[in-house]
Amino acid sequence: MKHKYYMAIALAAAARSARQGETPVGAVVVKDGSILAVAGNSREQDKDPTAHAEIVALRQAAKRWGDWRLYGSTVYVTLEPCPMCAGALLQARVKTVYYGASDPKGGALGSLMDMSFIQGFNHRLEVHGGLLADKAAKQLKQFFRSLR
Amino acid sequence: MKHKYYMAIALAAAARSARQGETPVGAVVVKDGSILAVAGNSREQDKDPTAHAEIVALRQAAKRWGDWRLYGSTVYVTLEPCPMCAGALLQARVKTVYYGASDPKGGALGSLMDMSFIQGFNHRLEVHGGLLADKAAKQLKQFFRSLR
Repeated sequence: MKHKYYMAIALAAAARSARQGETPVGAVVVKDGSILAVAGNSREQDKDPTAHAEIVALRQAAKRWGDWRLYGSTVYVTLEPCPMCAGALLQARVKTVYYGASDPKGGALGSLMDMSFIQGFNHRLEVHGGLLADKAAKQLKQFFRSLR
Repeated sequence: MKHKYYMAIALAAAARSARQGETPVGAVVVKDGSILAVAGNSREQDKDPTAHAEIVALRQAAKRWGDWRLYGSTVYVTLEPCPMCAGALLQARVKTVYYGASDPKGGALGSLMDMSFIQGFNHRLEVHGGLLADKAAKQLKQFFRSLR
């Protein structure tokens, strides 16, 4: 099933981030059946507070697409997006978001808050959580265990 | 007074954005009395959904500072930040935000919602709105009038 396929790619990007010392989160942007971007969290390496996987992937995808508006696109991300990233997904006019593990402490697509729709904002996200959630959660757990 | 000085610089960056066909919003990041970054909104030119003035400025500032954590920094922005940017200011551990004009339709630091503090998030923003608000509002009004 294609959703699992794309999420598996996001998980591979997350695993790559972990090997580089980054919190393992990965994201894939798909539009019209093509992968426009695959990215992992690169906050430490890039010394960029905004370099969460979703933001890096959206920037790459928009550059490739030639327009910052990614209407009709789908984003696969291994961890529930934070408020910044949920805001970016709205700004980029992403249609659908599939995420893996929920983030009770920081998730903005249902856990901590729900930013899939913001009153007054002219766009809303269609959100599906829990796709390959066990694999994403396991990656994160292993990473944080390795830090101790 | 230094706050007005920094906001005047942000307004100059916003005016530059307007001349480039971008919605005029500008931002300045100050840390330890030094300007780390000055940036204007560049979403259209960069074809980047995340290239709001605040995000561009935070990325530059962190790169220059050598750490994505901008503890103790102050950000001056001509328009009240949107949810994505408010989230980014939190992620970057910015201490204080001064903004100019309020944004009743999209502002996330008091208007549409208040993201200066998010339950469960380990950081909060100190927010001051209305600094040189008239000038920022006038810039935006002129820009949107020129589009018609």
